Amino acid sequence: MALNDVLDRIDTELDAATERLMDLLRIQSISTDPAFKADCDKAADWLVADLNAIGITAEKRETPGHPMVVGHVGEENADAPHVLFYGHYDVQPVDPLELWNRPPFEPQLEETPNGTVIRGRGASDDKGQLMTFVEACRAWKAVNGSLPCRITFFFEGEEESGSPSLIPFMEANAEELKADLALICDTSMVSRGVPSISSQLRGMLKDEFTIVGPRIDLHSGHYGGPGLNPLRTLSEIVASFYDNETGRVAVDGFYEGVHEVPEDQLRQWQNCGFDEAGYLNSVGYSQPHGEKAYSTLEQQWARPTLEVNGLWGGYNGAGSKTVIPSEAHCKITCRLVGDMDPDALRSKIRKHVEDRLPADASVRWNNDLEGSPAAVMNIARPEFEAARTALSDEWQREAVFCGMGGSIPIAGFFSSILGMDAMLIGFANDDDAIHSPNEKYDLKSFHKGIRSWARVLDALSRK
Amino acid sequence: MALNDVLDRIDTELDAATERLMDLLRIQSISTDPAFKADCDKAADWLVADLNAIGITAEKRETPGHPMVVGHVGEENADAPHVLFYGHYDVQPVDPLELWNRPPFEPQLEETPNGTVIRGRGASDDKGQLMTFVEACRAWKAVNGSLPCRITFFFEGEEESGSPSLIPFMEANAEELKADLALICDTSMVSRGVPSISSQLRGMLKDEFTIVGPRIDLHSGHYGGPGLNPLRTLSEIVASFYDNETGRVAVDGFYEGVHEVPEDQLRQWQNCGFDEAGYLNSVGYSQPHGEKAYSTLEQQWARPTLEVNGLWGGYNGAGSKTVIPSEAHCKITCRLVGDMDPDALRSKIRKHVEDRLPADASVRWNNDLEGSPAAVMNIARPEFEAARTALSDEWQREAVFCGMGGSIPIAGFFSSILGMDAMLIGFANDDDAIHSPNEKYDLKSFHKGIRSWARVLDALSRK
Repeated sequence: MALNDVLDRIDTELDAATERLMDLLRIQSISTDPAFKADCDKAADWLVADLNAIGITAEKRETPGHPMVVGHVGEENADAPHVLFYGHYDVQPVDPLELWNRPPFEPQLEETPNGTVIRGRGASDDKGQLMTFVEACRAWKAVNGSLPCRITFFFEGEEESGSPSLIPFMEANAEELKADLALICDTSMVSRGVPSISSQLRGMLKDEFTIVGPRIDLHSGHYGGPGLNPLRTLSEIVASFYDNETGRVAVDGFYEGVHEVPEDQLRQWQNCGFDEAGYLNSVGYSQPHGEKAYSTLEQQWARPTLEVNGLWGGYNGAGSKTVIPSEAHCKITCRLVGDMDPDALRSKIRKHVEDRLPADASVRWNNDLEGSPAAVMNIARPEFEAARTALSDEWQREAVFCGMGGSIPIAGFFSSILGMDAMLIGFANDDDAIHSPNEKYDLKSFHKGIRSWARVLDALSRK
Repeated sequence: MALNDVLDRIDTELDAATERLMDLLRIQSISTDPAFKADCDKAADWLVADLNAIGITAEKRETPGHPMVVGHVGEENADAPHVLFYGHYDVQPVDPLELWNRPPFEPQLEETPNGTVIRGRGASDDKGQLMTFVEACRAWKAVNGSLPCRITFFFEGEEESGSPSLIPFMEANAEELKADLALICDTSMVSRGVPSISSQLRGMLKDEFTIVGPRIDLHSGHYGGPGLNPLRTLSEIVASFYDNETGRVAVDGFYEGVHEVPEDQLRQWQNCGFDEAGYLNSVGYSQPHGEKAYSTLEQQWARPTLEVNGLWGGYNGAGSKTVIPSEAHCKITCRLVGDMDPDALRSKIRKHVEDRLPADASVRWNNDLEGSPAAVMNIARPEFEAARTALSDEWQREAVFCGMGGSIPIAGFFSSILGMDAMLIGFANDDDAIHSPNEKYDLKSFHKGIRSWARVLDALSRK
């Protein structure tokens, strides 16, 4: 059988595949830092060459920022399902460098208590994950001379710096990029060894405000007592965001558009192998701290949040300064779920703040921060069940439709710009330290990730 | 009469006195910045030379920091009262320089709606105030050949940088510095034209703490919901410091040692000419914001505070970062009154914070910050009433014993190290912009300040 031959070839070629990934990891494609612009270009060139080597038409496409890589294969086979695969070749900066146990761009295999890992910046996010798909294609092509699906490859180099070129490029090349379904490999497994398809992503609302008190910074010897201190006002407003009895956000109307998770999905989540204690303990928590009526997984995947990400004002140097500052600043983000409307929510939060301003205090808003609604995947499509079966076969463990606490705007863009559903399958683990020192990707994730995509492509071609 | 001749000479010599002050103001004696070390030295030399020119024995005395200036006059007159006069020749830094209307160390007379002012860094704090006393001595000496009191001059050059050498120097030179009473000219008048003797100064307690939540900074896509956010915890704790119904501090036992202001003193304060509306409006307040049961003046002079001077944590750069930070930081100071014990209060505040920590949060305290109790002047001493009469005569307005919201530790050191009471008389106005751009000293403050000290010295010699 063709698939079994493909899987065998993946096993025998694993060392070569790992070497290829190491090659890509050696390229310092940090997208946020202009000093690495040539490296980003080099990574794009590397990917074009690698796709070409497999027999896939591909080219580098310039943008105002770092280039895209677009490739096509199987166009002659009009009856085969047509998928687009998305990944990104850029990586996060490496600082603080002194916390790495080895140079971040000199990747190496390391033995750890959890098995062999590929250590290096980008090993997991997203070069390693991206290459699981490319290697699956390589094996299919080598064994069968062709791929089971028609495939469009779409790699960007600006994901870690806000993807400024992405929407214009997708709009300008919509016809070329359109496919039946987008595949994305940039997510984690719900727990080690449990294959996972993300069925929902939270949305995001960003806002920032400044509480203004006195006209100028005051000396607390002169105004301490009668003076209004905006740091106090800000603290009181932040405290008022929450109801500590229930753990809920206390902003009026905050939960409009939030839906309860259906019973059957909840049961699946409860049995998905999520290691709640490990997840909490690993960062120093003995218990979850969100809404008391919901489990940790629900708090993370299916409930909205209002989070303070930054708070500052007054003096923060050494020693003390008896200042009553004129201003106090606050940055917030909300994670959105269900049908929560970012614009409506922004108004509710702003009203909450404005309603609580004492006399002589005012608020100034930053109007440059955006919002995006939650995304719910169309898991009713037959491709999702086909992929789930393929993943379950590979991992010998029932694959789960899981939620995701994060926000991946690209999934929404495929829908809004290209009218395509997206399916997110990833093999990262929570301890991969993406964005942090000592990033790694389990060799098992890489190996079984390649095998998983070989099976998924096979399954999609049969559905 | 000798005093009248002295006052006349002060009037005719005002231009010369102003020129001398300008000379001193041209010296850039910024004590916090090592780049100006030679300038501090130069200011000390200038003062030694000026005292010598009057006929006063004086010398520069080295310290590990900037030098002291110590002078003596009238030692042969063992029967005369012996006063010590304290002032400081160092000044605050000048930044932001672009907000000055002229170079800060090129002083000049300027006409303003409130009369002629001497504009320049240090004009009020404290070179101008210091020179009111020196010029009074000069006039006395010129007219009468001697001074009516025995006087020790004691000038330091580190007041604006925390006076690190002061206590060791006072301890090492206690015998030399001891006098009957310390005079300090570093305070303001309660309102324009109302001569003021400070009868009480608030004390100070400084503290700083860090709320620690998760072990590391977290991504709100992974932990937003179940994650404990120390910025929220800190905000809730700061909010809990206050009772908004009454405006009081809500820390258990906070008001222990606080006494009500005696009726007669309160009546005096009510009639001291304090411009409450102007004081509040000038910084953007329409009303006082402290304890509702007390007047603005009482809130400022006679009531304790717990003030947040700095708050910071998380991300404060451009745009947004979806971080749940590991730590949140807070700097506080308390102004103390009456018999409040700084050490006991520190324990109460720390207990308040620790009692409110949720599970999985901890607190780390900075143990390097000190405290000092409030100081109540010994206004029962006859010198105080004598000085009050002298000031009333000069300003043709009854002088008042006023409170002061600030803390001047030197007054306490005279008491604790040298066993001396201190009397604080100053001629600054609230709009002098000390520590700020465009510092000035009213020419009227300078002129009548000199005349005031001439009268006070006369009155002390007769008491």
